[in-house]
Formats: sequence, C-alpha cells, structure tokens
Amino acid sequence: MTDVTLGIDIGGTNTVFGIVDEKGKIIFKDSISTNAMEPAESLFERVFEVFTKKFNEISTEYNLVGIGMGAPDANYYTGAIENPPNLNWGYVDVKSAMKNYYDIPFALTNDANAAAIGEMEFGSARGMKNFIEITLGTGLGSGIVVDGKMLYGFSGAAGELGHINIVKDGRKCGCGRKGCLETYVSATGIKRTVYEFLASSRDESAMRDISFNQLTAKDIYDAAKVGDKVAISAFKYTGKLLGEALADAVAILSPEAIVIFGGLAQAGEMIFAPTQKYMESSLLHFHKGKIKLLQSGLAEGDAAVLGASALIWQELKR
Amino acid sequence: MTDVTLGIDIGGTNTVFGIVDEKGKIIFKDSISTNAMEPAESLFERVFEVFTKKFNEISTEYNLVGIGMGAPDANYYTGAIENPPNLNWGYVDVKSAMKNYYDIPFALTNDANAAAIGEMEFGSARGMKNFIEITLGTGLGSGIVVDGKMLYGFSGAAGELGHINIVKDGRKCGCGRKGCLETYVSATGIKRTVYEFLASSRDESAMRDISFNQLTAKDIYDAAKVGDKVAISAFKYTGKLLGEALADAVAILSPEAIVIFGGLAQAGEMIFAPTQKYMESSLLHFHKGKIKLLQSGLAEGDAAVLGASALIWQELKR
Repeated sequence: MTDVTLGIDIGGTNTVFGIVDEKGKIIFKDSISTNAMEPAESLFERVFEVFTKKFNEISTEYNLVGIGMGAPDANYYTGAIENPPNLNWGYVDVKSAMKNYYDIPFALTNDANAAAIGEMEFGSARGMKNFIEITLGTGLGSGIVVDGKMLYGFSGAAGELGHINIVKDGRKCGCGRKGCLETYVSATGIKRTVYEFLASSRDESAMRDISFNQLTAKDIYDAAKVGDKVAISAFKYTGKLLGEALADAVAILSPEAIVIFGGLAQAGEMIFAPTQKYMESSLLHFHKGKIKLLQSGLAEGDAAVLGASALIWQELKR
Repeated sequence: MTDVTLGIDIGGTNTVFGIVDEKGKIIFKDSISTNAMEPAESLFERVFEVFTKKFNEISTEYNLVGIGMGAPDANYYTGAIENPPNLNWGYVDVKSAMKNYYDIPFALTNDANAAAIGEMEFGSARGMKNFIEITLGTGLGSGIVVDGKMLYGFSGAAGELGHINIVKDGRKCGCGRKGCLETYVSATGIKRTVYEFLASSRDESAMRDISFNQLTAKDIYDAAKVGDKVAISAFKYTGKLLGEALADAVAILSPEAIVIFGGLAQAGEMIFAPTQKYMESSLLHFHKGKIKLLQSGLAEGDAAVLGASALIWQELKR
C-alpha cells in the first residue's frame, strides 16, 4: 500500500482533482465543471462521486492519508472559503464539509499559496526556505515562503503582492482601489497596456483589428513574436513594472528566489528579460546579482493538483 | 541569584549598554562614546572595562547568562557587522570577538530588529506574533515579526521597508537609489519636505529663518504646534506617504499591528493622525478597521538596551 493524498483545486470555471504520491507523481487526475452559480455542497458531492468511484478501483494499492485544497479566497486558519467574488457561495466552512466524505487530515489555502507549496515540494523551489511565488493569470497572485513555512500573517491574508500600489491614482482594480500591481502585471494588465499604447502611438499593429474583449495575452505574445512594436513595448513595460515591484518585495522579504508561474509566464524571455533587468537595477546593492528569478518547475496542467496535494503533504510531515 | 543579560546598542555616536532581567527591568545602564573612527576592538575593550568593573560589584546577586547586541548593518546569521557606512570598521566578526570577554550565548541583529524584539518582549507588541516595527529616526528602519519570529529572510537582510520605492525618480537616497520611503518619511525626510514646501508655497514660516543643516524635526514640530502652515502640511504629507506605504506592507504581511518608534514618533497625533487616515483608506477591504497602529511601549532612553537584551532573552528561551 502506497500513501497518497487527494489534491483539489477549485477554479472559477473548472475544478481539478487528483491523487498524488509523496514524490509528486500524479496517479490519477480528473476535472469537472465548477458550476459557479450552484452551491458549494453540490460541487463537493460531484467531486467525490467521481473520485470515490475511481479510487475504489485502486484502493487495494493506495492508502488515502489526507486532502489538500486550493481555492479562491480560502483561509488556511479557518478552513473556510470567504465570499469569493467569482463563485456564488458566500461563506463556506469547507473543513467541516469535508468530514462528511473522508474524516482524514484536511488543509485549505488560496491558489497562489498552493502553487508556492507545490513549487517547494515538487518544483523549482525544492530545498528552498525563503522564496516568493508569483502567479500570473487573469490577476497576479503571490505566495510567500519564510523559513520553510507559508507566510499567512495574523488574519491569514498575507501575500497579496498583486495589490500593492505601483501607480498613484492608476488603473481601477477589481479590489475597488486604484493602481494595484495586478492592473498592470497580469494577462488583463498587459491587455490594458496594449490598449493604452494603441491609443498613444501611431504604430501599425495587427492588434488594431482585435476588440478589447477578444484580445488575449496569447495574441499579444504572437504579435510580439513577429515584431509588432506595440506588443513588444507592452511586454517591456509589463516586465519593467514587475521587476521594480519585485525589488521592493526583496527589500522587505530578502528571499533566495522568485518563481514565476502561470499563463503570462509562458511568454518566456519576452517577459523574463525585462523583469530581470529592471529588478536587478532596482535592487539594494547587497541584493544585486544574488536573487534568482526562476520559471516554475510545475507543468501548467498539473500545478493546481500538485499544489493542493503538496499542502496536505506538508501538514502530514509536521 | 537572578539571571540577567547584557544588552549593548552600538550607535554612530554613542554606545549604550545595560544589565536587564527577564521582565525588562534595567538593573544598570551606561553609555560611552563610540569613537567611530577607531577600530571596533577598541570600543569592545572600553565597553567591557566599564561593564566588568560595575558588574563585579553586584555579581553576588546576578548571574550573567547572555549578551545581545543591536548595531547598524549587523547580520543575525553570521554574527558580523558588515561595512557600516557610519563606522570606520569594515567587516567585524563580533560573535568571535565577544568570546574574548564572556564565553556565554551571544546574538546580534540590526537596531530596527532589536527594537522589534524589545517591543515584543517588553513593549506594545507583547503577546503578538505578527507585527511590524517602524523606527523613525534619521532614517526609517523596520523589523518584521512573523509567527513570533524575526523575519530575516535568506541573507539576513529582510525588513528594509525604508528602501521600498514610493516616488518614481524621487529624492536621492543614501543607498544610491531614488525615491525610497526613508527619503520622505524620517527626520531627514520631513526636513526635505519642509524645504520643498518653503520653495513651492508663499506661506510665512518661522522656518524660513533656519538653514537646512540647522533645521531639526523638533523645530518642525514646534512650528506646527503654533500653527505654521508649512510645518503642518509637512507632517500631513509625511503621514500620508507613511500610511500608504504601510497599507502595501499590510497587503504583503498581514500583521496584527504596526508599532511606531523613534524621534519623529514623538510628534504624536501630528504624525499618527494622517498616517492612520491614509493607511485606512489605502487598505484592502478585508483589512480595513482591523490593523492596529500603536506607539512604542518602550521608553526612548531605554529602548536600545531593552531591544538588545530582549534579543538574547528570546534565544535563551528557545
């Protein structure tokens, strides 16, 4: 019998779950639609219906020792999901709900924290005790690891690097404030930058034929690849702002490395080169040349399940 | 016999040291001039000459169990002071040097971290496990406590909130960069602000008769007290920038409280009111109304010795 954990990642659209062993091998993985307008309880029922059927087939070989979950607006301390804006759930006491299915160790955290823990257990941050994980998706999430442990802070809400102010009275943010990092550095942020640059410049660009709602980060990347000036400038600007913000985070946290994960990070050097350059030039002298900027070591499709699973593996090891 | 520790605080001008018991009672305290141009070894000799003479008189009652030290550019991990700009010392392995005097547990950290630890053991942060200490002196120092432990980070250099960028291409900083928080929020920062405001406004001000080098934070406070518009505006502006920067720190660290210590903090409500107001309005919605902004609970004259002593008390308790 091999010990395994169940990792569940709840997204606004899909919920992914899978069985993972202690070394990060995914034994089984599946995905169902989250149905954000239905109550949380119905999602949990559907997850465990699929999972239990599958797990029963292999339960002579594997021993389920814990469940880890990554979810938006999840609080590690309370084990609850607290009024996620993209799910019609309100407040859900997930920790108690899980007991109805399997009465085994359970832990919950937000998706960026789960990514950080996955990185530490199975990815680019293996062996590191102080690092910052940045997840670049629709928004910008971050998970901070200090002395080998997730930084949760007093209320459990630490690690919101996406919401530090980088432009006074800047772009409106979903959080209700203005000028937050994620309004510039994220898939949505670079789109807004492209639209700003399309307005301010007179450069020809294929993106002049794409509406705001249609435009994707992939379109911008493709355009930059074929020399589109607006797209190239947008990547440079995004990397500059990210690099400068990371230098501030380094001054506060003094990490060994910063690991970048997520859709926008797929643009590779296009985003890494300016980020590295401006981070380096903005660092305090004693940090210069010493902070590693790394790409995630987790495969895009596996990261969510690995992160959720790593969370509970860490708890079990303590 | 009562167990006591020796706390030593090395400043650019004076070095203060004292004997402190586990409850923070100062049994004996003294101060000598640092003589920054002489080697570190000569300072240590002078400190221990005075200390040992005094301690021998009372050594039948007290048992010395450890030495804690706060110093500029001190590295907790290495036990060394690393090229402090205001002391002509270069690199000093303090930990080894101390063994020549007393071969007992020793710990070293920078002055802002020592203040944070003093606050946690004997001051306003008693019982707290997550808080930020801000020291407002000539510069702006900070010490961050996470989960009951000092945040040192990978290299030991964490907690440099004074060097996050708050104005792009802003005022020149001693660190060689531009727009750092401490160039605006510190005794020197508010002086620079006053000079900027004296230049941009036409308001009458007693400070128009004081040279830059003569002007002190106390002068600005005194002027504000009697209704000087420039001085009042300078305090508001300083508090606004501090409050906004603290809101960013809260987004990253999610502390229970922020404790303000040091000379400029003596200005009381003049600085606290705008800091509180702008921090509150800049906080993420789930932090609003929940972050305590506190004045230090350590007496100005005792803080340095208490902080250094608290550092070693914490080590001994582990």
